[in-house]
Amino acid sequence: MTTKPLIFITNDDSYLAKGFRHMVALASEFGRVVAIAPDRVQSGMSQAITINQPLFMRKVEESADVTIYAFSGTPVDCAKIAFDHIFVNEKVDLVLSGINHGSNAAINVMYSGTMGAAIEGSFYGVPSIGLSLDDHDADADFEGAVEYGRRIISAVLAAADRLPRPLCLNVNVPRCAASDIQGIRLCRQTRGFWREEFYHREDPHGRDYFWLTGGFNNAEPEAEDSDEWALAHRYVAVVPVQVDMTDYKMLRSLDGVIK
Amino acid sequence: MTTKPLIFITNDDSYLAKGFRHMVALASEFGRVVAIAPDRVQSGMSQAITINQPLFMRKVEESADVTIYAFSGTPVDCAKIAFDHIFVNEKVDLVLSGINHGSNAAINVMYSGTMGAAIEGSFYGVPSIGLSLDDHDADADFEGAVEYGRRIISAVLAAADRLPRPLCLNVNVPRCAASDIQGIRLCRQTRGFWREEFYHREDPHGRDYFWLTGGFNNAEPEAEDSDEWALAHRYVAVVPVQVDMTDYKMLRSLDGVIK
Repeated sequence: MTTKPLIFITNDDSYLAKGFRHMVALASEFGRVVAIAPDRVQSGMSQAITINQPLFMRKVEESADVTIYAFSGTPVDCAKIAFDHIFVNEKVDLVLSGINHGSNAAINVMYSGTMGAAIEGSFYGVPSIGLSLDDHDADADFEGAVEYGRRIISAVLAAADRLPRPLCLNVNVPRCAASDIQGIRLCRQTRGFWREEFYHREDPHGRDYFWLTGGFNNAEPEAEDSDEWALAHRYVAVVPVQVDMTDYKMLRSLDGVIK
Repeated sequence: MTTKPLIFITNDDSYLAKGFRHMVALASEFGRVVAIAPDRVQSGMSQAITINQPLFMRKVEESADVTIYAFSGTPVDCAKIAFDHIFVNEKVDLVLSGINHGSNAAINVMYSGTMGAAIEGSFYGVPSIGLSLDDHDADADFEGAVEYGRRIISAVLAAADRLPRPLCLNVNVPRCAASDIQGIRLCRQTRGFWREEFYHREDPHGRDYFWLTGGFNNAEPEAEDSDEWALAHRYVAVVPVQVDMTDYKMLRSLDGVIK
């Protein structure tokens, strides 16, 4: 007798987000779901962890194959408490994070709470997929993300035994009708950085305030192997993610400079 | 006439931390200092940014060569507002983040707000150094960190014109008397992950709470080129940091698996 795969889900838009509900429904096609998601929006939380305050968890849904907890921590806290507290004696088969409202392509992989949690999940030896739709709308159309998410989840579960670990995928889906998506492309992370324009206003009490807003500067818009190029051309972009941040080239440049 | 270098400082322990005061004093030896630091502790904030709320800044110190602002954002917010609002018409020569209370070696580079801000600073084309002491004590002894920080800052400023960009260094100083430090080692990021143990208690109102605590599992304690080995052997560890997180090896493994 084969047991159903056990799938852990989290996100950064909270357990109330439309994209999260789609992820739970999609994952349920493949196995038993345990989700621990933030109890409020945690976008842009990156790999942040909560060190200096206690965290609260409550069960918000339970059925035969789906259990959902709302947690007061960051997305990475959600992944950590899942693996180091909830699943201590259970083998998890897959980590899913999202479906995020908004792209996490290019350097966004570093700022994203969705990808922070997916990356953290991969640290536990479990194949991990962050799935994002290039549409911030709270009521975005997730049809394409669900359709291609299903294809990618199938492929990863089928090949899990022969793929190395850690295994983490950053999957981004273009904003267009599902039928207009051109296919899937394996990509690398696009080079480029954000430049911000801070809204600068005065609050009702006469205090200056700033509000972060900005735009991504793509340093290589013509690079056909980059994830931004794939999205711009209506492909689903799949970038495998690793966490050795050593700049090996710079190591050689620094030889003799710092001693 | 040469103008003094302009040095931007931030951290994640807040502008009130002892390590921050040491960094300001150290940087003042080299040039004019503008610091924007969090107005409260922001440890473990990684590359997090504040999207959904306004941010407040106030000047807390001003002298001929040192200006310090306290900011209500994350460390990365501090770097962003510095470059995209304060320094719009000024060339910054160096970014310094820290001196952090606690090591940011190995995978900590990803969780650290200190390193988040240092990495962000490097996105603006300015040489960037995160400096951390392997001692969490609020009253830690920063003598060795200051002495070796001085050496590394000197070397980076002297070689800045011929080093490539982005340039970001993760510098970690061992916890020992300055005179016991064995020297500086250029290293790579140690492989290994944290495993957490959540304190699980009941609050005064009968609600369960969890508190994150854990330990780092070093996957290669004998690797002499790793930053953890350097720290354990009383060397200052210098790891250059880059942000292409693409797992190129995995890209090849996925060929034909995801299509």
